[in-house]
Amino acid sequence: MTKTERTYLDWNATAPLLPAAREAVVSALDMVGNPSSVHGEGRALRMLVEAVRRDVAALVNTAPAHVIFTSGATEAANLVLTPNYRMGRTPLAVGHLYASEIEHPAIREGGRFSRDDVTMIPVTRAGIVDLDALDIRLKAHDKARGLPMVAVMLANNETGIVQPVRAVADIVHRHGGLLIVDAVQAVGRMPVDIEALDADFLIISSHKLGGPKGVGALVSRGEVLMPVPLIRGGGQEKGHRSGTENPAALAGFAAAARAALADLAERNARISGLRDALEDGMRTATNDVIIHGAEGERVANTSFFSLPGLKSETGQIAFDLEGIALSAGSACSSGKVGQSHVLTAMGFDATLGGLRVSLGPDSTEADVERFLAAFSRVVSRRRAA
Amino acid sequence: MTKTERTYLDWNATAPLLPAAREAVVSALDMVGNPSSVHGEGRALRMLVEAVRRDVAALVNTAPAHVIFTSGATEAANLVLTPNYRMGRTPLAVGHLYASEIEHPAIREGGRFSRDDVTMIPVTRAGIVDLDALDIRLKAHDKARGLPMVAVMLANNETGIVQPVRAVADIVHRHGGLLIVDAVQAVGRMPVDIEALDADFLIISSHKLGGPKGVGALVSRGEVLMPVPLIRGGGQEKGHRSGTENPAALAGFAAAARAALADLAERNARISGLRDALEDGMRTATNDVIIHGAEGERVANTSFFSLPGLKSETGQIAFDLEGIALSAGSACSSGKVGQSHVLTAMGFDATLGGLRVSLGPDSTEADVERFLAAFSRVVSRRRAA
Repeated sequence: MTKTERTYLDWNATAPLLPAAREAVVSALDMVGNPSSVHGEGRALRMLVEAVRRDVAALVNTAPAHVIFTSGATEAANLVLTPNYRMGRTPLAVGHLYASEIEHPAIREGGRFSRDDVTMIPVTRAGIVDLDALDIRLKAHDKARGLPMVAVMLANNETGIVQPVRAVADIVHRHGGLLIVDAVQAVGRMPVDIEALDADFLIISSHKLGGPKGVGALVSRGEVLMPVPLIRGGGQEKGHRSGTENPAALAGFAAAARAALADLAERNARISGLRDALEDGMRTATNDVIIHGAEGERVANTSFFSLPGLKSETGQIAFDLEGIALSAGSACSSGKVGQSHVLTAMGFDATLGGLRVSLGPDSTEADVERFLAAFSRVVSRRRAA
Repeated sequence: MTKTERTYLDWNATAPLLPAAREAVVSALDMVGNPSSVHGEGRALRMLVEAVRRDVAALVNTAPAHVIFTSGATEAANLVLTPNYRMGRTPLAVGHLYASEIEHPAIREGGRFSRDDVTMIPVTRAGIVDLDALDIRLKAHDKARGLPMVAVMLANNETGIVQPVRAVADIVHRHGGLLIVDAVQAVGRMPVDIEALDADFLIISSHKLGGPKGVGALVSRGEVLMPVPLIRGGGQEKGHRSGTENPAALAGFAAAARAALADLAERNARISGLRDALEDGMRTATNDVIIHGAEGERVANTSFFSLPGLKSETGQIAFDLEGIALSAGSACSSGKVGQSHVLTAMGFDATLGGLRVSLGPDSTEADVERFLAAFSRVVSRRRAA
């Protein structure tokens, strides 16, 4: 049976913990104390937390003071997506959120905005945010209630398609708005530079990088314009996010951030080679496979495909029984497999299923071969059905 | 030098990780996948998360379905402290929060209530919530804007003084209100039973129990009356708290919860013996030491004392130089040492410093001896000053 030998091709759902991150976590687990305590034990942990802040800042080319640690990307999204900002001590209102239709549910739910204050921006058939539609919406934005806020992700979690964030930033800033960029699936998979992107805030996550789960960050462009805190209490993170810091998870995050920068170009060249082999193999096996976004710019590790007649759920279970862990899109909502909101946004029929293969630094040619062998069997069974 | 040999007497700030919790964390770190994924890897992690839920529910004598995991107690407090509730699908308004003056900052900040909608309830000179004052405030509560909500902790983090929560519950429920109980410093230190306390919600934390940092829970009495979510997104935790679950931290939380229940009475007998020796020793060394709450019911591990003429900050640094890690109260706000809000609430002069010794299951007679030796030196230097 192939079932006991598993092939993990779901790195966009979560990456296996990197050995260096594991070592950093375990080592910090053994440090006793609370980083907010003033005694020696507390100060040693404070130094660790601040060293992590430098590594995470370097990952997106900003200053450590611009990094606010959170329990993950979803919390960071809920922190930044709010109508209530402060410019120093002066309240500043954000009147409306414009989010692309292909955003992750953590963004699409709108954080602290009421549902009426969130508008979705369509994407093109190619899976790219419609810049003209965005411009039109922002032109029509009523500033009486506050600034416009726009959320566009850098790399889509399902398709891997890279969004034209710099062009989005030009439009948003021309209209006096704020740009939030979900970079969760981009960091570690492509260069991410908050200045080059001209984003006002970035959201990043540790566990998509090979760090531990339970930690992420909101990265700001400066220190003056900040959201009203989501979690209040002891005043940690300069008051932007209260709660005892998690040094073990942070130490692992730093290790993953360093690894993400270390050999990005070589890693991507290798991973995109594997993905090309995988996609070529699928096309050879059946001429009706649809590979979404293959004609445009994608991160190197992701392949999102549809096999007409194969439902997402059926396909995912079939591959799981073949020993292959892959996904039907985002891993959310407690295992529900519904229609991909990304495919719907791209204009595909709601009955078309989608399956996502996502690779990582440990992926091998053997993984691709095992996937393709399983793919052939799934395709044959689909024909027989 | 005693400095290299450290004595950790700050278990209320955070407990060192229990060996069983460490083992559980490390083992779960090596499990690959996302608990929300439907493939085999995801399902194994989902099973782990649900097993943890049973262990955490058992810790406070409730059903697993009543446990919502959060990134810690501060997040749980911000989730539960909101004017916006739902009874099933029907919105239910909470009009005002009444919190005791000795609550932790995570409660006193009021979560999602505006500052105008939070009233502090005084405590007596003995450090116990003033039941008459509470009753008077609730009688005057205007229900037009919604129900009253009351927050009273079970054991105070600075003094260890146990609050009369059952009596508070009777008053709150007589007035048709909701009772939130911060049990962070109580679980693992005394029996905690949400039914016996008649609380509507409990807040608990892993790292105060010897589990890892970065995880806690909001425990509800039922499943019908629930706060509007604080963190929205992928719909994890039945939609009450979105964000990828943290199986490694959860596994450690479960191990700590099991250990907390295992031998509570024997552990407390031993720890209270050490504390009695420590307090007797302080009284022998100087007759003007004030031990707060010693005449009433306290958890077994905590001793909060003042030495007239010794400021909190000076005392804490002096003990740290002696190799003793203790605290001037809560470990919050990035190492700021201010006047204890608990001592102020108890009616003490703002210039009176307070120092907290908090013990744990690993504390020994040798720890107490080292503390008392240092205490004598600190007392002598105070006299000399």
